[in-house]
Amino acid sequence: MVLGQIYAGTKKELKTIEKYLEMALEAPHPLLHEAGLELLRAGGKRIRPMLALMASRYGDPGRPEVSVSAVMLELIHMASLVHDDVVDNSELRRGRPTVKAKWDNRVAIFTGDYIFACAIKLISAFDHPEAHRQISRVIRDLSLGEIDQIRHLRNWKQNLRTYLRRIKRKTAILMALSCQLGAMAAGCDTSLSRKLYYYGYFLGMSYQITDDILDFVGNERQLGKPAGSDLRNGNITLPVFYALRNPELHDAIVSVLTEAEPSDDDWDDVIGKIRDSQAIEEAQSLSDRYLRKAEGILDELPDQKVTGLLREMTAYVGERKY
Amino acid sequence: MVLGQIYAGTKKELKTIEKYLEMALEAPHPLLHEAGLELLRAGGKRIRPMLALMASRYGDPGRPEVSVSAVMLELIHMASLVHDDVVDNSELRRGRPTVKAKWDNRVAIFTGDYIFACAIKLISAFDHPEAHRQISRVIRDLSLGEIDQIRHLRNWKQNLRTYLRRIKRKTAILMALSCQLGAMAAGCDTSLSRKLYYYGYFLGMSYQITDDILDFVGNERQLGKPAGSDLRNGNITLPVFYALRNPELHDAIVSVLTEAEPSDDDWDDVIGKIRDSQAIEEAQSLSDRYLRKAEGILDELPDQKVTGLLREMTAYVGERKY
Repeated sequence: MVLGQIYAGTKKELKTIEKYLEMALEAPHPLLHEAGLELLRAGGKRIRPMLALMASRYGDPGRPEVSVSAVMLELIHMASLVHDDVVDNSELRRGRPTVKAKWDNRVAIFTGDYIFACAIKLISAFDHPEAHRQISRVIRDLSLGEIDQIRHLRNWKQNLRTYLRRIKRKTAILMALSCQLGAMAAGCDTSLSRKLYYYGYFLGMSYQITDDILDFVGNERQLGKPAGSDLRNGNITLPVFYALRNPELHDAIVSVLTEAEPSDDDWDDVIGKIRDSQAIEEAQSLSDRYLRKAEGILDELPDQKVTGLLREMTAYVGERKY
Repeated sequence: MVLGQIYAGTKKELKTIEKYLEMALEAPHPLLHEAGLELLRAGGKRIRPMLALMASRYGDPGRPEVSVSAVMLELIHMASLVHDDVVDNSELRRGRPTVKAKWDNRVAIFTGDYIFACAIKLISAFDHPEAHRQISRVIRDLSLGEIDQIRHLRNWKQNLRTYLRRIKRKTAILMALSCQLGAMAAGCDTSLSRKLYYYGYFLGMSYQITDDILDFVGNERQLGKPAGSDLRNGNITLPVFYALRNPELHDAIVSVLTEAEPSDDDWDDVIGKIRDSQAIEEAQSLSDRYLRKAEGILDELPDQKVTGLLREMTAYVGERKY
């Protein structure tokens, strides 16, 4: 399943979203304006707005709140990426220099804050206390997820539950909210919106696990950054948890994480070992379990054309290569 | 006028605010919890909640939205301080290590984001689109003010208008909103809330100019950081603008700002010269003009006891020494 085919079903709306994003990021400040444009140009899959748009088809997708929610969700995502790049010390994202690399950490902080503020501005479009609560919760969870990540950097003794909670906060909750908010904005009832929330949650968990797998099995061109970047930065992801259960790999990983300055060869060696190990398949299997849960939710949804699109989305997440 | 006397008039409410702040900052994460407590312990004048509480007395101060707005305003202020300290590279605030100093820049970013999220959570208490618009505007302006500051670091050629816009965004708008929101939360009409907005705005402009003066004339114990820290960090404040008009001072300032690594003696010398110059009085005089405008607004407000308190607040800002 290619994402382009799924996009085809929401092409017109997504084009509108892109225009709205540009409008929302218009800033009375040359530096911010440039940083915003750079972020837009860098692209991205716009998965969150797309989920919102798809979910809205269970209600009235023509309501103005629908596109507002889609834009807001992408802005929250963009703002958190800008801040994440500072925390992760990332120089590149999707093969382009990050805001923190092109300018510096300080500019990245306030560009992120500015984009958050643009997102918050759009919240007022929702006359729905539950939506407000959920939006503030997701922003809170995003920061908790990142703080968790900092806290557990290079900590190979953390348990799997810590990892799952972290990706839930970092990724799954925002995807869950994207589905829920799209439905709420379209006037769907609470029960249906709630189901879509869980669909997005399970999809998001699988999406992040896939990301973490691709970080090992992808090549630098696909990833836009060196393979194994997560581990190099001390971020212990699912494949590493499974690899740590293998005694030989365990010692190699612990050694590279605790050495003061491991060489590039040391890193390449460990990353290669994890890539070629059982750990990748095991991670894939957990990702698949989440996808099956997402599919289970779809079975409970009304049998409409959009349910088919969401099925294709699930298939895409299961097969995506970058 | 001592701030304590003014506080006496809102003592009970402020104590409640302090308790709510602690509740709002409760975090399901040891590091965040500690950072939040550290910020609360570091204290602060709680000027923004106090302004909101005072403004609320023009309406019904017993409405629950009043204390919610007061807490939210202080949270926005705290979050922006945490991010500012990264941008300003501040190790100390009020004599205590900043979050970025005690942990690091990355923790500071996400602690700030977390506190912003806590503030946003409280926004949902307001069933008032104008309030939402204003709150998102103030968050946007805070980030614009800081980005402006970064952009104009060490730029001695910037004009005074740039400075005034910067302090408006960094300080005055949030104080203006504090007054306006307190009134709106208490059910005051638009016209009265608007007047209080302007009172807060003029007060805030004077407040920030006073801050910028104190940075030169205060001593390290009062300031909790070395005198002249703003200029040392490249931040050109009002006294520097006036000092630059004096040819001898102009050359000394430009030289210290453009030298690759000026010595501590060079800095102390320039800062001492500015402190002993006419520039301080000139800055004071602009601050006083803003205060007189604030007083002018008070003349238009209903003749209530609280108007007297706001008058005392104005006097305090005009005379404060730290």
